[in-house]
Amino acid sequence: MLSFLRHGAACTLVLAASLPAVPALAQSAEEEAALRSAAESGRDASIKRIQDWIALPSIAAEDLNMQEGVEYMATLAREAGFDEVEIVPTSGHPGVFATMDNGADRTLAVYFMYDVKQFDPAEWSSPPLEGAIVEKEGFGRAIMGRGAVNQKGPEATFLAALHAFKEAGITPPVNLVLIAEGEEEIGSPNFGDMTAVPHIQTALKEAEGIFIPASWQDRSGAVDVNLGSKGVVELELISDGANWGPGPKTDIHSSLKAAVESPAWRLVHALETLVEDGGNTPAIEGWYENVRPLTEHEKDLIREGAALVDPEEQKETLGITRWIDDLPYDEAMIRLAQEPTVNIEGLVSGYTGPGGKTILPGRAVAKIDLRLVPNQTREEAERKMRAHLDANGFEDIEIEVSGGYDPTETAEDSLMIRAEMATYERLGIPYALNPRLAGSWPGAMFTDPPLSLPAGHFGIGHGSGAHAPDEYYVVESTNPNVAGLVDATMGYAHLLYAVAEAE
Amino acid sequence: MLSFLRHGAACTLVLAASLPAVPALAQSAEEEAALRSAAESGRDASIKRIQDWIALPSIAAEDLNMQEGVEYMATLAREAGFDEVEIVPTSGHPGVFATMDNGADRTLAVYFMYDVKQFDPAEWSSPPLEGAIVEKEGFGRAIMGRGAVNQKGPEATFLAALHAFKEAGITPPVNLVLIAEGEEEIGSPNFGDMTAVPHIQTALKEAEGIFIPASWQDRSGAVDVNLGSKGVVELELISDGANWGPGPKTDIHSSLKAAVESPAWRLVHALETLVEDGGNTPAIEGWYENVRPLTEHEKDLIREGAALVDPEEQKETLGITRWIDDLPYDEAMIRLAQEPTVNIEGLVSGYTGPGGKTILPGRAVAKIDLRLVPNQTREEAERKMRAHLDANGFEDIEIEVSGGYDPTETAEDSLMIRAEMATYERLGIPYALNPRLAGSWPGAMFTDPPLSLPAGHFGIGHGSGAHAPDEYYVVESTNPNVAGLVDATMGYAHLLYAVAEAE
Repeated sequence: MLSFLRHGAACTLVLAASLPAVPALAQSAEEEAALRSAAESGRDASIKRIQDWIALPSIAAEDLNMQEGVEYMATLAREAGFDEVEIVPTSGHPGVFATMDNGADRTLAVYFMYDVKQFDPAEWSSPPLEGAIVEKEGFGRAIMGRGAVNQKGPEATFLAALHAFKEAGITPPVNLVLIAEGEEEIGSPNFGDMTAVPHIQTALKEAEGIFIPASWQDRSGAVDVNLGSKGVVELELISDGANWGPGPKTDIHSSLKAAVESPAWRLVHALETLVEDGGNTPAIEGWYENVRPLTEHEKDLIREGAALVDPEEQKETLGITRWIDDLPYDEAMIRLAQEPTVNIEGLVSGYTGPGGKTILPGRAVAKIDLRLVPNQTREEAERKMRAHLDANGFEDIEIEVSGGYDPTETAEDSLMIRAEMATYERLGIPYALNPRLAGSWPGAMFTDPPLSLPAGHFGIGHGSGAHAPDEYYVVESTNPNVAGLVDATMGYAHLLYAVAEAE
Repeated sequence: MLSFLRHGAACTLVLAASLPAVPALAQSAEEEAALRSAAESGRDASIKRIQDWIALPSIAAEDLNMQEGVEYMATLAREAGFDEVEIVPTSGHPGVFATMDNGADRTLAVYFMYDVKQFDPAEWSSPPLEGAIVEKEGFGRAIMGRGAVNQKGPEATFLAALHAFKEAGITPPVNLVLIAEGEEEIGSPNFGDMTAVPHIQTALKEAEGIFIPASWQDRSGAVDVNLGSKGVVELELISDGANWGPGPKTDIHSSLKAAVESPAWRLVHALETLVEDGGNTPAIEGWYENVRPLTEHEKDLIREGAALVDPEEQKETLGITRWIDDLPYDEAMIRLAQEPTVNIEGLVSGYTGPGGKTILPGRAVAKIDLRLVPNQTREEAERKMRAHLDANGFEDIEIEVSGGYDPTETAEDSLMIRAEMATYERLGIPYALNPRLAGSWPGAMFTDPPLSLPAGHFGIGHGSGAHAPDEYYVVESTNPNVAGLVDATMGYAHLLYAVAEAE
């Protein structure tokens, strides 16, 4: 469910010259050398760990291997050195909570998902549960399998860093808290059950921040440092003659239109009230009430990033000839980050095959996603959508919400973000400071009260194909800009030092 | 393609007391007895004729058995006594033109189709090409097969009447012209090629009128006498980013909506301009320019018919609780006949499966049917739709027309209609005089210039299931109100006398 927009258009690549970074990391050269040596000698075991995990797919939507998956997750945590590991029941599928007390001053939290997206083996060039090693041109040798990059590969690489600490006999410089769920791919509907458990909530609140391991270096080696993302609500608007006074309850012959009302026309009218400006601006009552405009600093960050991108290439990639209102590229990128949207994902009514069929459909559905910006909330959006439809006389139009998240923000000067930036700088990784992803991820579950934790993504290395066939995760890089498994492992080790030593 | 609305709601059952009918038929009792005797002795041959014809399905859309079918049609005509029979090439599949000169003063034309709708044998309870005899409760024994009622059964029954004349040694009282096409089920795209052939056009213009044999008696034995029908244009309105300036050319990630325009929203806006009054009234410029309001007489006919129907039962059948504008039933039936419509048959865009998918679709399609009333034309409707979209700035919205017919009208006092009514009266068949079907049929190909012929449907007997599995045609009726094969055969014989003897 990490419906996470990561492409050049949303990626603002900036030099971090003006930003407050932590000082150079203070672990000794000997420690670093010992950790690297341990990471190298543990490399084959790490690859096998990823492959074994891929061989056990847990899919919440299909109730597949959920108990086996959560137990496996707990075992992985124990083996990596977590000293307290518990399986936590929820109203849905259970999760894992684990802690590693290293006697440090600071604590870092990490978020895992042990579930994966569904897959159809027929669509894969290599069996999706086999985790075979394949060549990926321009990147190197990669594990191919369901969950390779989303998120077992990156997560297991973080665990590999902990194994390296153990192997090298070095105590990690921060305490660790791990929270892992098995329902990320169905929208984390019961994750709140876990974070509401008092001792879990207490432990998480002690952390400086929380991150999900990720491996999204592009060919140039660049990564994003995300400071937040839009929220999203996915819903269906349903106009059904069975609910509406006039009917009809089913499809009837189209010639009757002259005497019978049409639920499909009703849906069109209802949709038309939701937007203005050609569909580009929400017109739902009160929609902008809580919208916080981007600050000038945030806009500057976006403009700086936009200056590094070829706008024509962006338009070509997207198959467009202009941005909304013919905006120049930097202003379009500001609009992308700033504006809430009402988007039509799909329309379905009546006859959808080739040619025509003379029916008056009894039902029409619009699949909608609402992108929300701070400080809108999902609850607010759902409430205002209902109120808007009611106020416009569309009480019969059903709203069926299938999922969503609040928008999320993490302060640029939070220790979590500063530690991420410092790590990338130390490693010479170019990074993009992105004020706000136009896509959405469930970061608000951490950044919202009661946890109110800085939250982000961290990691180097590369993989791709989340939710798609032939998902892969690079373990042996042939691209000098991109980390292989050992370098990615060391990236996590460096992050722990950066968190420990940030001023 | 006879998208012909025939249900109680559109069926106005009236007594014809006030209408000018032809006098009692003048053929002698001896002639009638001889014809009936011949029809009875030819009954088994007639059944076999229908079964053999069903065994040879001609399907224009699949280019299946078209040459075989047209030759079979020509043979059927020859065997029934047509003395000049020719196969007529068209730009598509060929048709048959045949004449029978009986030395009579008047000529009657008959329209046949030799093609049938596609079928899937898996959906049938009896093999669709076998023409097996089955029991149909409430009606009797019936032939089941593709084309049984649409239109091979009724057409072969008309031919059976001509065989009966031959067998009885009686010369039919009118000259006959037969025109048969093989592309009715794909919308008769090349039928005009046939009627444009000079000697065919001349022969048709000499006829008093033209009819298609039909067998639509209901359980009470009632039939319709249709005086016309609405026209129809079926089309798709396509909003495609590949044609529209801004794009996008394909589906892109939905989070981009804040910077990229949406072809789906564009379609919604374009649709919204087409109608007013909740979708119930076309708002296309000039749409009503040529609309002829129903006359008071036509409205009276509809009111008389409406008085005989239970409005609550009609609403229940259609799954509605009220008619447009809360009209009373008779006014709703007048609106049904009077008003042109813009109906949404289907909507298709983006993701149409269960739940949601975060895309901004590159394309959106509305499947539309436009019902036209006299004196609108299909050409006018297509032209005005294009002009309307252009005038509203939707030049990029494509219109893809898949088919259509002009509206059609036949005068109530035409000899063709008077002969139909006289025949039904003589046979004691209750009939419904329907000023205008809300559905559509290609009658305009006859009633429009250059032919300008009265055109209608005639026949007794019963069948059902056109275009559906288990299509059937009753050959041995157990319902005293409904004609079996011999009575239906005699119905056509009576019609010929009624045409010959009308004043």
